[in-house]
Amino acid sequence: MTKPQYLTGDNAAINEFIDRFDVFLLDCDGVIWTGDHVFDGVPETLEFLRSRGKKVVFVTNNSTKSRQEYVKKFTGLGIQSNAEEIFGSAYSSAIYISRILKLHPFKNKVFVIGEAGIEEELRSENVPFIGGTDPAFRRDITPEDFEGIADGSLLEPDVGCVLTGLDFHINYLKLSHALQYLRRGAVFLATNTDSTFPMAHNFFPGAGSIGKPLAYMMNQQPVALGKPGKAMMDAIEGKFELDRARTCMVGDRLNTDIKFGIEGKLGGTLAVLTGVSKPADWEAKDAVAVPAFYVDKLSDLGAFAQGGAQET
Amino acid sequence: MTKPQYLTGDNAAINEFIDRFDVFLLDCDGVIWTGDHVFDGVPETLEFLRSRGKKVVFVTNNSTKSRQEYVKKFTGLGIQSNAEEIFGSAYSSAIYISRILKLHPFKNKVFVIGEAGIEEELRSENVPFIGGTDPAFRRDITPEDFEGIADGSLLEPDVGCVLTGLDFHINYLKLSHALQYLRRGAVFLATNTDSTFPMAHNFFPGAGSIGKPLAYMMNQQPVALGKPGKAMMDAIEGKFELDRARTCMVGDRLNTDIKFGIEGKLGGTLAVLTGVSKPADWEAKDAVAVPAFYVDKLSDLGAFAQGGAQET
Repeated sequence: MTKPQYLTGDNAAINEFIDRFDVFLLDCDGVIWTGDHVFDGVPETLEFLRSRGKKVVFVTNNSTKSRQEYVKKFTGLGIQSNAEEIFGSAYSSAIYISRILKLHPFKNKVFVIGEAGIEEELRSENVPFIGGTDPAFRRDITPEDFEGIADGSLLEPDVGCVLTGLDFHINYLKLSHALQYLRRGAVFLATNTDSTFPMAHNFFPGAGSIGKPLAYMMNQQPVALGKPGKAMMDAIEGKFELDRARTCMVGDRLNTDIKFGIEGKLGGTLAVLTGVSKPADWEAKDAVAVPAFYVDKLSDLGAFAQGGAQET
Repeated sequence: MTKPQYLTGDNAAINEFIDRFDVFLLDCDGVIWTGDHVFDGVPETLEFLRSRGKKVVFVTNNSTKSRQEYVKKFTGLGIQSNAEEIFGSAYSSAIYISRILKLHPFKNKVFVIGEAGIEEELRSENVPFIGGTDPAFRRDITPEDFEGIADGSLLEPDVGCVLTGLDFHINYLKLSHALQYLRRGAVFLATNTDSTFPMAHNFFPGAGSIGKPLAYMMNQQPVALGKPGKAMMDAIEGKFELDRARTCMVGDRLNTDIKFGIEGKLGGTLAVLTGVSKPADWEAKDAVAVPAFYVDKLSDLGAFAQGGAQET
């Protein structure tokens, strides 16, 4: 493995780095913000990249929010954005189903385990679905359910895909339906494989955990549409028709963001030190991934453009 | 591996086989009955074994029923039994917690994910618990829950164990509580690891699947108190003080029953062909376990006592 190039404070190197890419895929938590706190200088840095003609795309594994809901969050935090710049795992799943999976017209319905964000994105791609937030599935299983699920009379024949995401209303009824669809040959997808979900300065069950009972019963892992899965990169490419060689992934985590960029065969990866991973992590012998470049913080990219405060 | 000895129709061999053991541990589904149909001659065979001074113990992974509920099921099917002869995974868990685990007095409460059968058995061993069928946990998670679970104010400080079993009312709230107890060091137990639960001639999520989200989040497998886990054999030994060398496991499945007997270092294992596994399974090169003996059906053991219908 080659050592990553450290860019902070080196204007020439930063300039050269920026010139190498047309598109920057940016992780959010640990890069743009932490919790509800936006890192200093980040909004200006994003503007600076746009002013240099770069496309920025925010790539997040959170499946509970639609792109429109993300735009609201960005606006509330003082960051300019539009829905076209946002690529969450719910949208990634919708794109994958509609543009890559190409289900048979008689088997094109999706059984959803997840929240409204997934439903909104499936609708945006005209993908028919059942389950999700439908109150009919937010209840205890009954003896009639057991019979009707077992004999198939309560199942819809045109379901060809089960999509699991973070679902705060997960229950036995939904899992039972999903199991039968999978046993009948439905494609098994997951918005992402994150085991936990950060909330209130602690950890709660994540999208990856919600799908684990099904993976165990089927002895099969779902295709995951979040980082670091290749299917998400395919979905991003399918949407933006980008040149992977001139695209750079920016993130704070080696095992999701940097791995995602490397396995997705992008032209570059940039690590920031404002989140989870530190230089010791990629210097370790068994490092999960090594970035091509790194900076202390995202705003180091734009600092010299705003007066060169960090020039040496 | 030595070839298993086939006993059906060989009176001398059956006699010798029965004399070798004092205790017979019997799987139920596929051995005693299938669904609600009791196999012909089984009640008489059980009586015959008892008349020969043998102890019979019914060993089942089903955690939803208590021993008393099992007695009712046996009676309804025309089989004599008493609670002392029944060893389900809920009771196994209660015994393991109370007699083997020996939790600290200030950390001896169990957080239960499961149904009433587990609660009944914990009560029978005077093990304090929360969760389970308590309506306070059978509801959607709220913003106040997220805060209180995250900061610990909604957690009970004396919980030292999380026990997961089959729970038809599994939800995000229960998983969130359980996760925090495990992160605080609670012992992680499962009644059993069965991925599915047979019902209405089909398969539904089993106890093992219910606990999978926690196993994934903790990157840790629970100690399982059902077959083929060694902890269940320890619990059986703890209860009956049996001589393993003079105990035989009888079952239809190599990967649970026969494996359970072999890994539990019992004196013998007997496979019956009225359930899942067939001779081809143990004759396979990669057989998961090979029984010491086999018969076509359990009643072959008693047949000769009732007139020798199958004598050759």
